[in-house]
Order: sequence, then C-alpha cells, then structure tokens
Amino acid sequence: MNKKKRLHLAIDGMGGDSAPHVIVEGVALAKERVPSLSVTFFGDQEKLSPLLKKYKLSQGVEVVHTPVHIPQDMLPTQALKERQGSSMHLALQAVRKGEADGVVSAGNTGAYLILSKLILRTWDGISRPTIVSTVPHEKGDCILLDLGANLQTSAQTLVEFALMGESFARHVLFKSAPKIGLLNVGSEDVKGPPALRKAYKALKALPINFSGFIEGDDITKGVVDVVVTDGFSGNLVLKAGEGVMRFVFQSLKETFSRSWRGRLAGFLARPLLQTLRLRFDPRCYNGAFWLGLQGVAVKSHGGADAYAFSYAVDTAIDMIRADLQNKMREDLEKPETQAVLGELA
Amino acid sequence: MNKKKRLHLAIDGMGGDSAPHVIVEGVALAKERVPSLSVTFFGDQEKLSPLLKKYKLSQGVEVVHTPVHIPQDMLPTQALKERQGSSMHLALQAVRKGEADGVVSAGNTGAYLILSKLILRTWDGISRPTIVSTVPHEKGDCILLDLGANLQTSAQTLVEFALMGESFARHVLFKSAPKIGLLNVGSEDVKGPPALRKAYKALKALPINFSGFIEGDDITKGVVDVVVTDGFSGNLVLKAGEGVMRFVFQSLKETFSRSWRGRLAGFLARPLLQTLRLRFDPRCYNGAFWLGLQGVAVKSHGGADAYAFSYAVDTAIDMIRADLQNKMREDLEKPETQAVLGELA
Repeated sequence: MNKKKRLHLAIDGMGGDSAPHVIVEGVALAKERVPSLSVTFFGDQEKLSPLLKKYKLSQGVEVVHTPVHIPQDMLPTQALKERQGSSMHLALQAVRKGEADGVVSAGNTGAYLILSKLILRTWDGISRPTIVSTVPHEKGDCILLDLGANLQTSAQTLVEFALMGESFARHVLFKSAPKIGLLNVGSEDVKGPPALRKAYKALKALPINFSGFIEGDDITKGVVDVVVTDGFSGNLVLKAGEGVMRFVFQSLKETFSRSWRGRLAGFLARPLLQTLRLRFDPRCYNGAFWLGLQGVAVKSHGGADAYAFSYAVDTAIDMIRADLQNKMREDLEKPETQAVLGELA
Repeated sequence: MNKKKRLHLAIDGMGGDSAPHVIVEGVALAKERVPSLSVTFFGDQEKLSPLLKKYKLSQGVEVVHTPVHIPQDMLPTQALKERQGSSMHLALQAVRKGEADGVVSAGNTGAYLILSKLILRTWDGISRPTIVSTVPHEKGDCILLDLGANLQTSAQTLVEFALMGESFARHVLFKSAPKIGLLNVGSEDVKGPPALRKAYKALKALPINFSGFIEGDDITKGVVDVVVTDGFSGNLVLKAGEGVMRFVFQSLKETFSRSWRGRLAGFLARPLLQTLRLRFDPRCYNGAFWLGLQGVAVKSHGGADAYAFSYAVDTAIDMIRADLQNKMREDLEKPETQAVLGELA
C-alpha cells in the first residue's frame, strides 16, 4: 500500500461557461505542478475523451460518463428536480462515498451550494455552510467570508464563520494565531446592528485572536487574516472591490496609450506593470470554497480560463493536504468553543 | 431686494480633525470659485477671527460665537445631552430658522446625523434620512446610498432611498432619466432577501427608470446613475472600494520607485499619473450629504484638508442652486409615488 496520502479529486467536467475544454486544460496545468494528483472527471465521455488525449492526461485520470449536466443559469430548485445524476451531482457523491478527497466545479453556484449541502452535509454544531475566498491586501492575503451562502445572518452564524475561518487560516494558510475581524460600519463596540454586537461579545469570549470590529477599508490594509461578515455584505464587498480594481487598471491602460509620452513610459514600465497586474490577477484568487461541510468542495468562477481553474484545483489540494476536515472538526469540538456555540444556539 | 437667489451657508467652524483651520481655508477656496457665496461660521470667535484675517474673508462672512463644540469621538447620545448650543447645533438651527440655505460640517458623524434629524426633521412620507455620496465609475459618476444612516432596511426605506436618489440625480446632476439600480447578490429577480424583492416590485411599479437588481461590480461599470442599498452594505462597499483604490495606487507607486527602469518610466509618466490620480482623488468626492431632511446638510470627512472641504461646500451650493428641497418635495408628492409609498408603509 502506498504510504503517501491519496490525493484524488472529483472534477465536474461539464460545469462552467467553457466546459469541458478549460476544465480539462486546467486539470492538466494543476497536474504539471502536482504530479501525484489523480482525478475522476464526471461528464460526457464523448466530449471529454478527445480533450484528455489532447492534454495527454492518462495516468491517474478516469472518466465517469453521464449525459446530464446543470446549465449555468438554471434555477437551483429546477436543477435539483430535473437534473438528477448530473456531473456535479455524481462528483459530489464520489466525495460522500469516500472515493474522492474533494470536488471542484465551475458550474451553477446556487445548485452547487444546495447539492453540496444535501450530499456532503454540514458538521455537527454548524448550522450553515459558508462560501469563502482569498483576497489580496497590502501585507499579503486574507480570507473573506461569507460571500453569499447566508444572506440573513444571526450572531450564531457569524461566530461559526469566524471559527471556520480561523481554523482554515491556521491549518491551510499556516498562520499561527490568525487575527479575526468582524466587518462593521465603525470600530467602536457600540456600533452596528444587534446581531453583530452579540457576535462580538461571543467572539471576545472564545480562545481566538479576535481583533474586534473592522471597517471596509481595513480589509486591504491587511489588519486581519480573516474577515467575517454576512453573505449579503460579503458578496457586495468582494464584487465591488473587484470592480474598483478593474476600473483602476483599465484607466491606467488608457493613460499609457493616450500620448507618445504615455506609450514610451508604458513601454519602459511594461515588465513592472505586468508584475503588478499578476499581484492583482483575479485568476490567482479564483476558487471560492465551502466551509462547514463534511467534505472539501471548491467552486471555480464560471467564466474561469484554464489557468484560473488550475488555481481552484490548487485550493482543493491545499485543503486536502492540510487535513483540514479533521483539524476543523477537532477545533469545533473543543469544550470552550462548544460552550459558546451552545449559548448562541 | 436682490433678485438673485441668496446663497448663504451655515458652517460648523469647529467640526473635523483640523478645525477650525482647514474649515476656514476650505471656505476661502470655495468662495474663490463662487464669489456670491456668503457664510456664517459657528464656533470659537477667538480662534476663528485670526483665520478669517489670514484668508482675507470679510465680505459676506460673519461669525456667531459659541465656546461649545462636539469632539469627533464623543458618543452621539452624550453629545446630545452635554453639548447643547454647540457649533454644529447652532449651524443646523440657522438652517431651520431660514437664516441659512444649508449647513456644512466636518464634525462627529453620528451626532451630526441625529442633530440634523432632530432640528431639520424629515419630509412627510420619508421615514428616515439617508447618507449619500458620489462615486466615480467608468463612464463618469454615480451616487450611492445609504451609507450608514439606516443599518437595517425595509422595502419601504429602500424605495424611499431610490426616490430621493432619483430626484437628486435629476435636479442636481442634470440627468434627464437617471437609471436606478438596487444592489443585490445576483441580477435575477428571485435573488436576495425578502425586503429587497419587495422593494424591487414596488420600484417596478413607479414611474422611474428602474434598472432592477445590480451586482457589486456593476457600480464601477457605470451601469446606473443611482445605486441603492441598505446603510450597512453601502458603508462597507464604499469603504472597501476606497481601500482597494488606495491599495492599487500604493502598489503602483512602489512599482515605479523600485528600480531605475521604474523610476525613469515614473518620471516620464508623472503628469499622466497625476491626471489619473486626480480622477480618483477621494478629496473630489468628499462631501456626503443627507437626503430626506427639510434642509440642505452636507457632511465633510473629518480628516478632510481644505481642498476636500471646499468640495463639500460645493456640494451644498449645487443642492441649493438646483432648488433641490422644493423639487424633491414635488417629486415625492406625486400621486403615483404616494400610492406606492402608502402601500409599503
């Protein structure tokens, strides 16, 4: 028996705007970096096989055929009813049955979230899963959660988010005492809606490195490692920030193409600006993931290219290698944590 | 009698981190642009007088002395109790009594909002005032509201925000049929929390140019002229966006100073980058304002410099010149608008 830990992913071959092409190409890119990775693609065999050949994927790669897939814009409730046995469905079941260590999909977000919850199920003591993503800031990266899994949030779910984020930052990002911040409209402890103030008190009582309330501009200042907020605000903040970034870079590009002076400066600065662009490249931050479920599930952006999709695969690999599932369960089962969660429930 | 409309502002001379210096200097800058502006400063006569001399402010400028002012970090409830007759208080009363056409303060935001509401009072049919600001996007500017006046929002307040924003964009920004968007986590009409979906239906029924739900990254795309959201999300989105902008420009600066190549390119590009910086200069977007009150009230950032403060003064001038108060009341009193608001109340 191989002593090395198995690293096997279930891949939804048919999810995403440019599936299955970018999916297969993305897996090929990831496998170049991590040759020990093995995968099962779920999807249309006829479409997948020529791509596997094209990207020379054979060793440690298999296909499970299904003709069913969930379109990107289908209502999740409709997908659940009409698309049983879809590629997404089967990929998640492979994790549930222990045949794979994690799943990656670029498919319909709403359907993926609901199916993940139904098939993988939440941990004991966690009422709802959360969508998480990594975002860059002045001192490195932090994670931001929730990004839209829970639109109306209670103190209890905010505390759960904080605990799951803390666990992820410690075990996957290797931060020894990750700083946790709760997003609010002011940093004084009297600010904000009641649920937030209640969560603040509970987090103060937990054995974590809680920095208290932080404001919107503290995210990019790198004040904390884990930014906790409700799914509505988190989704808006993430997307608005991406929009601002795109806007500034677009304006920069125009500035450098408008005059001979700009073009000359732009020519000189090109390698530097490319490095800068990479630092902010949303593709390197592709791969939101669910936390709180009994299984590793990563969501690539639907419009991701192969490069971006390979980063989503990397995220799943990191979570599996860190043994996050077991570590997080241990963290959540600590008596002092259980006591605080029990009071909020 | 002077046939020209009076343009007289009440200025809180003591509010802000660097008051009264930047306040007086900021008014001097604004008066250079608009010589017909007259002002009353409220605050410490002894501190104000030498500054008025320094900035050659005499014609159309008077001082009402009060030794009381509200510190930036005082709890609003405490300020209300202990700081009666403060510079902020008296400035607002001058508007209430009709002695001034509007008020500008860089002081304590919470106290300013509560005092504004108490002294100026909301319009009939408007349950709560809202904090609004202008933000830049790819095609120009839009306004974003609410920014923190109302943290928990009902369908009714969202619709009120939309109506007030629409009126502002039409009369002050001269957009003939301003496009209104409601921030949500998706653009399909089944998305989002119940209050938002209820607001969506009501806005569809109103005679305004409603674009439906928009997402966070649509703000900078310039999809709409008025972005409507609750105060909690709006505050986070605005500040997070400012943070991202600062982060990108900071990284850009570092990029251009790290090597000889960067410094040379930076030297060549300097005038272009300065133009770009101006486009994004938060000082030009200084001056949030309240809507929904019976009086023009503008809030400068507490840390504003004179240049930024002068922009806040400009915002007040624009609102007065547009006769926004009367125009907005007429808009709100339209029978079809009243019908929709009545159903939501």
